Amino acid sequence: MKTEAALLVEQGKPLVLAELSIPALKPGQVLVEIAYSGACGTQVMEWRGDKGPDRWLPHCLGHEGTGTVIDAGAGVTKVKEGDAVVLSWIRGGGAETGGCKYDWDGKEVNAGGVTTFQRHAVVSENRLTPLPAGLTAETAILLGCAAPTGMGAVHNVLQARAGDSIAIFGTGGIGLNACMAAAFAGAIPIIGIDPKESRRELAKAYGATHVIDPTSEDVVDAIKAIAPGGVDLAVEASGSSKVMAGAVEAVRGQGGRVVVIGNAKLGDDLTISPSVFNQGKSLMGTWGGDSAPDRDYARFGKLLASGRFPIRGLLSDPYSLDQATQALEDLAAGRVARPLIDMSKR
Amino acid sequence: MKTEAALLVEQGKPLVLAELSIPALKPGQVLVEIAYSGACGTQVMEWRGDKGPDRWLPHCLGHEGTGTVIDAGAGVTKVKEGDAVVLSWIRGGGAETGGCKYDWDGKEVNAGGVTTFQRHAVVSENRLTPLPAGLTAETAILLGCAAPTGMGAVHNVLQARAGDSIAIFGTGGIGLNACMAAAFAGAIPIIGIDPKESRRELAKAYGATHVIDPTSEDVVDAIKAIAPGGVDLAVEASGSSKVMAGAVEAVRGQGGRVVVIGNAKLGDDLTISPSVFNQGKSLMGTWGGDSAPDRDYARFGKLLASGRFPIRGLLSDPYSLDQATQALEDLAAGRVARPLIDMSKR
Ligand SMILES: [Zn+2]
Ligand SMILES: [Zn+2]
Repeated sequence: MKTEAALLVEQGKPLVLAELSIPALKPGQVLVEIAYSGACGTQVMEWRGDKGPDRWLPHCLGHEGTGTVIDAGAGVTKVKEGDAVVLSWIRGGGAETGGCKYDWDGKEVNAGGVTTFQRHAVVSENRLTPLPAGLTAETAILLGCAAPTGMGAVHNVLQARAGDSIAIFGTGGIGLNACMAAAFAGAIPIIGIDPKESRRELAKAYGATHVIDPTSEDVVDAIKAIAPGGVDLAVEASGSSKVMAGAVEAVRGQGGRVVVIGNAKLGDDLTISPSVFNQGKSLMGTWGGDSAPDRDYARFGKLLASGRFPIRGLLSDPYSLDQATQALEDLAAGRVARPLIDMSKR
Repeated sequence: MKTEAALLVEQGKPLVLAELSIPALKPGQVLVEIAYSGACGTQVMEWRGDKGPDRWLPHCLGHEGTGTVIDAGAGVTKVKEGDAVVLSWIRGGGAETGGCKYDWDGKEVNAGGVTTFQRHAVVSENRLTPLPAGLTAETAILLGCAAPTGMGAVHNVLQARAGDSIAIFGTGGIGLNACMAAAFAGAIPIIGIDPKESRRELAKAYGATHVIDPTSEDVVDAIKAIAPGGVDLAVEASGSSKVMAGAVEAVRGQGGRVVVIGNAKLGDDLTISPSVFNQGKSLMGTWGGDSAPDRDYARFGKLLASGRFPIRGLLSDPYSLDQATQALEDLAAGRVARPLIDMSKR
């Protein structure tokens, strides 16, 4: 069987639409017909080569999507043919099969345990969860990456409780999921900080009670004017070490916590005074919002499906698969918060 | 009523033994006859002036001790005359009365809500807890500061569980309490790191399964040889930002946590790559090991009293009150891990 994929062949160059031969399924592997794929900063960094040379070229891309199970290898029990599923880079229960190799006219193409910039994909069982009731295959792509990272950071890592004050630095795709998560948890106030006017407007639509423009006022002063003594919690979703240092300043002593979910840029060092730790502040990292798909995705799906927030608005207008490069360019330029690639669009 | 106190009159100069008049008790204040006082890095820093000029001079010193209640102000319900108590800088239940002012031959002497380098002290109700059964007034001074900080960092902040691997950087007074706490929690292995041979020997006596000399081998390599992939948890008790950066390197990704309890030195900045947060590592600060005296001190007391470790060995030979300056000098020079000031010694 053959399928079509948008491949990374050369860093910084347009993705190449290629016809791939799908290999026979190994035990624990699942063949999924992809309905939608999302895209995030991770693919932009891979595409631009932000982390240095890539020894896996050519390779498939994408780590968040939705689709339908077409076939399952031996031993797969988590999903069966016909199931609607969420594809996510975060590992849950089920077999871990490692990556997959496709054939492209005699050339070998690498792929990780889950890839989604393609019409069909061979996926490791542990990267699949059932698509929760109440979500469409379109909006459920949020469960592949943005929701577990942004909502997990607030619920699992910070463990925000009703009445906690919180500041969210960077209200792009993941930051907006953090905003919603804070609102669902009852945080008050919820302060969104972003230099882009359009993103501050989005922040207000997705739970922020206050917004701050860091280009026009001192962020720490502005936060302390809203939350005297500093906020209880902060989410750093911008990826800038300067913003990170500001987030540490903005939280209160004796228990203030900052979670970092922004993607660090190579060589961008963070410098802070270790006295902040003596004051009882914490700087917490996370791998996928500490989310466990089998425990968390149904719950996050229920929250997203609750109707409290217009979640379709978190996604771009659909791109077709052959517009995948454009999707990454628009994301990199900040023109869209979360690109949506619709495989049915030609 | 009069009492005697070792006062800080001038930074960097010997403490001055002074006869103070004790003021009438205000509501919520308790008069305690001090039996023993401990001393830690905080007093050394105050004495040397490490944090800059001190606007409270002359003032009382010390924030950990034990004693007997002599009198209680209006509204005090937590303790009564005759009770054996632990004095601690960490706030628990009961009235917060702020500081106290003593008279010294017509000069005003400042004191915080708790001070202990003196024979009698006016203490805020919320800095007192009953002395737990099984501990002497001598060893119970550990509950005033070292145990809640060191044991609390491991139990409350890191929440170490049986089978977690842990590295403890700096095995002085607080680091040894962290070692014991790790052992009580069932951590395996427990790796103590200290440049001083005598402190590495102490680490072994107080729970460490392995010790590393950072002057003779690469600490991160040595830790990873013992715990492949890095340790689950780390305690930074040295106060050096270089050691802190090493601790971050030494913990595993996807959940590795470092708690910082070492006292930061003014101007000693920490520089790290924020990519460690994307790897899922966390750098946690704490205020007194996140310990709540009313919840934790009885439990820590039970552990210390269990007989598993020779806790008297954590304290120095007794100093008299007029040797308080010597106690701080010996602590600063690393000659003792935890000075013990015995008010009955003349
Ligand atoms: Zn992603
Ligand atoms: Zn202390």
